[in-house]
Amino acid sequence: MLLLLGGGVVANAILTKTKGNGQGFLFINWGWGIAVFAGVLVSYKSGGHLNPAVTLGLLASGSDTYAAGVEVTAASTVVYLAAELVGAMIGAVLCWLAYKDHFDEEPDPALKLAVFSTGPGIRNYAMNVVTEAIATFVLVFVILGAGNFTGAGGTDPANLGWLGAFGVAVLIVGIGASLGGPTGYAINPTRDLGPRIVHAILPIKGKGSSDWGYSWVPVVGPIIGGVLAGLLAGVLLPAV
Amino acid sequence: MLLLLGGGVVANAILTKTKGNGQGFLFINWGWGIAVFAGVLVSYKSGGHLNPAVTLGLLASGSDTYAAGVEVTAASTVVYLAAELVGAMIGAVLCWLAYKDHFDEEPDPALKLAVFSTGPGIRNYAMNVVTEAIATFVLVFVILGAGNFTGAGGTDPANLGWLGAFGVAVLIVGIGASLGGPTGYAINPTRDLGPRIVHAILPIKGKGSSDWGYSWVPVVGPIIGGVLAGLLAGVLLPAV
Amino acid sequence: MLLLLGGGVVANAILTKTKGNGQGFLFINWGWGIAVFAGVLVSYKSGGHLNPAVTLGLLASGSDTYAAGVEVTAASTVVYLAAELVGAMIGAVLCWLAYKDHFDEEPDPALKLAVFSTGPGIRNYAMNVVTEAIATFVLVFVILGAGNFTGAGGTDPANLGWLGAFGVAVLIVGIGASLGGPTGYAINPTRDLGPRIVHAILPIKGKGSSDWGYSWVPVVGPIIGGVLAGLLAGVLLPAV
Amino acid sequence: MLLLLGGGVVANAILTKTKGNGQGFLFINWGWGIAVFAGVLVSYKSGGHLNPAVTLGLLASGSDTYAAGVEVTAASTVVYLAAELVGAMIGAVLCWLAYKDHFDEEPDPALKLAVFSTGPGIRNYAMNVVTEAIATFVLVFVILGAGNFTGAGGTDPANLGWLGAFGVAVLIVGIGASLGGPTGYAINPTRDLGPRIVHAILPIKGKGSSDWGYSWVPVVGPIIGGVLAGLLAGVLLPAV
Repeated sequence: MLLLLGGGVVANAILTKTKGNGQGFLFINWGWGIAVFAGVLVSYKSGGHLNPAVTLGLLASGSDTYAAGVEVTAASTVVYLAAELVGAMIGAVLCWLAYKDHFDEEPDPALKLAVFSTGPGIRNYAMNVVTEAIATFVLVFVILGAGNFTGAGGTDPANLGWLGAFGVAVLIVGIGASLGGPTGYAINPTRDLGPRIVHAILPIKGKGSSDWGYSWVPVVGPIIGGVLAGLLAGVLLPAV
Repeated sequence: MLLLLGGGVVANAILTKTKGNGQGFLFINWGWGIAVFAGVLVSYKSGGHLNPAVTLGLLASGSDTYAAGVEVTAASTVVYLAAELVGAMIGAVLCWLAYKDHFDEEPDPALKLAVFSTGPGIRNYAMNVVTEAIATFVLVFVILGAGNFTGAGGTDPANLGWLGAFGVAVLIVGIGASLGGPTGYAINPTRDLGPRIVHAILPIKGKGSSDWGYSWVPVVGPIIGGVLAGLLAGVLLPAV
Repeated sequence: MLLLLGGGVVANAILTKTKGNGQGFLFINWGWGIAVFAGVLVSYKSGGHLNPAVTLGLLASGSDTYAAGVEVTAASTVVYLAAELVGAMIGAVLCWLAYKDHFDEEPDPALKLAVFSTGPGIRNYAMNVVTEAIATFVLVFVILGAGNFTGAGGTDPANLGWLGAFGVAVLIVGIGASLGGPTGYAINPTRDLGPRIVHAILPIKGKGSSDWGYSWVPVVGPIIGGVLAGLLAGVLLPAV
Repeated sequence: MLLLLGGGVVANAILTKTKGNGQGFLFINWGWGIAVFAGVLVSYKSGGHLNPAVTLGLLASGSDTYAAGVEVTAASTVVYLAAELVGAMIGAVLCWLAYKDHFDEEPDPALKLAVFSTGPGIRNYAMNVVTEAIATFVLVFVILGAGNFTGAGGTDPANLGWLGAFGVAVLIVGIGASLGGPTGYAINPTRDLGPRIVHAILPIKGKGSSDWGYSWVPVVGPIIGGVLAGLLAGVLLPAV
């Protein structure tokens, strides 16, 4: 759900002959925000986990459950991370299907890759990792602060359903607007890696490089930021 | 309500001499989202049904009521679908009335039709059906996941009133931003068919073709997507 | 509050040398929506009344109170309408004060008036009244449907505070986006008349006509629409 | 959190080679609104205080606590104001770090300062103070009206968590859109002063003046507005 809608808004904004062609960054921010909104709403059963940086941040914070009835163990962690990667890949395939004719008619291979994965405005791997880590830190720290995830003790009904999902969506819009400028804000390892694998595999007409040289940045940066946020949250965010 | 506001925002964005002339796709997305918001708020008594794809998706999901006190039967289904079509037609007439002078002064017949009904960026009926089906699947699946409609068991007060209506509105904005690029996202058979009939009937000055060749796509695509979502929701979205 | 923020956003969008100069209609829609949001939040004691069309719509709907402890009588109605006009005038004065230097440096008198009051895209008084009536009908009908005003029975906590105020704000954004194209959507008699009086009185440098020929349209249209909505709401919007 | 995201959105909108380059004022308004949203969510323990104008407004309103368990005393007031300044400075440093390469490649020193602190469209210190005071009055008066801060009696759960934070965010967007045109709306003394100090200290490549001549305006204006709002709130905003 996340990658179908998230990739879709980029496709709409940049591929040729779409209704949203030429719409700007705020449009893309809202598209991603609402992609997370929809993703959280349909994954409530597993605690709304869509992002390894959040999953690992929750682990680092010392929480003992990921969702109601799901204990934190090595096995459940691996299952969560794998499911997040597979879900991202399925979403990317569906997104390509929905925009197939527009991919076929688009001449620029760089725009095709941009629908799938992020890339930096100024290529400098060290600073790109710093930016991704800071942005992901904000995401995970605020989510833990709001206690939205059941594993983090968020049992207040006001944090569930439409409202909690919308809160996270707003946060994504804000992080994108504020900290997405340098790297396009992956802030989620599988959101970037899953679609990049799909880009490499799918028979996309006239596609170019999958830019594997950059691919580790949006994996390592978000994991650093998410784990730091989890560690600090235990110290700085006492329960109300 | 839905079509008055939904058609209105397109009229404002594209007809000549309006205050909103030249506003882009995000503007139109918000207009439609809030059109649904208003429509849901005034139709609570019948469960907020405005869209045959949602009604049929709820049917496919195995729900036994459409709203409090309304059982799912062949008769109630026909009444719901007919009411949705008639409501869409009334809305389209009021929208034309509100913008009558702007319709009269607008020289381009294609823009006049676009206020009423959708059309594809790249005409390819098979792929257009796929896109509409995917987008409608997202709509219906998330709505069923959120349990917003009373028939789907959504009795949590947090899902009613302003909040539930706003949740659906946000979802419409997101689907439009992300998956509206290829076809303009009807994602609702009567939203497209009702106004198209009105376009054919009304004495609109200088109107062109109603494009009946495309008219079946935004009916068939959303029904496929909505029914698939209903069938899968029963399997993949267990109650919390 | 309403007119300070509402006028302010127009000033920001169109007057010379502002930070928001050249921002479009969606920007103005959000500005007005949030102006209503703020206005409702600080007027809860009197039931959030800012608009004679809503006040008269509530009267027409047969409600017997305007707010907790305020009965509907001829006297209370006159007080409400007068307070709404005076409040609009104070807001318009403060807005002029906040943007005084920008008013002074702006050469176009038509833009100065546009900060205060609405004007039509295509001048046709009959059709302008129709558009204002339809747009105001939507506003009042949805508000009564949502039961937001205490006088209309909206005692559900979910309809009060931030959420109810935000719901009305979203509605204003949507009505503006969808039905604001022809006339700039006054949808409130005092929102237009109060500032127009202020425009006529204040010593604004280089101001032009206050366009009194049009001034009755945004008074009469909204009253027609609001009263019709109140009458129909009693029939079409039974309590849940 | 506030200044990291708030400064970040400006950096994204105006620095060279960012993804959001050229996005307009509404984009910046949302970025700041959501910066406050995130800031409030992680500072709930101390009552969500991020702004001396709000803290002093609450003091002026006669409230006897700043947050649950925090009495209003000279000492707690000084601690709050100091913490707000230090937090703003840390945020500004992190924001510079996240956008470091873009600061380095940006040739215009005025744009670099604009990421940190505000400046007027038309330089006229007296009127700039008036505008900042009016805008801050709106902020503090509405917040006190909504009773969001625990010290002001806002114990209603509907005012806490995601919803209260989002309400304040919306308010910030609206004040920016409506009253941010002349001065760029500091409406918070430390939001402007803290980053200005950081701008003066940090070794930013090719930076220009920190414009200390203007620096007192966004400190004095907001304090005047906030204190006036606090004084009037006690009189005009009785409890529901």
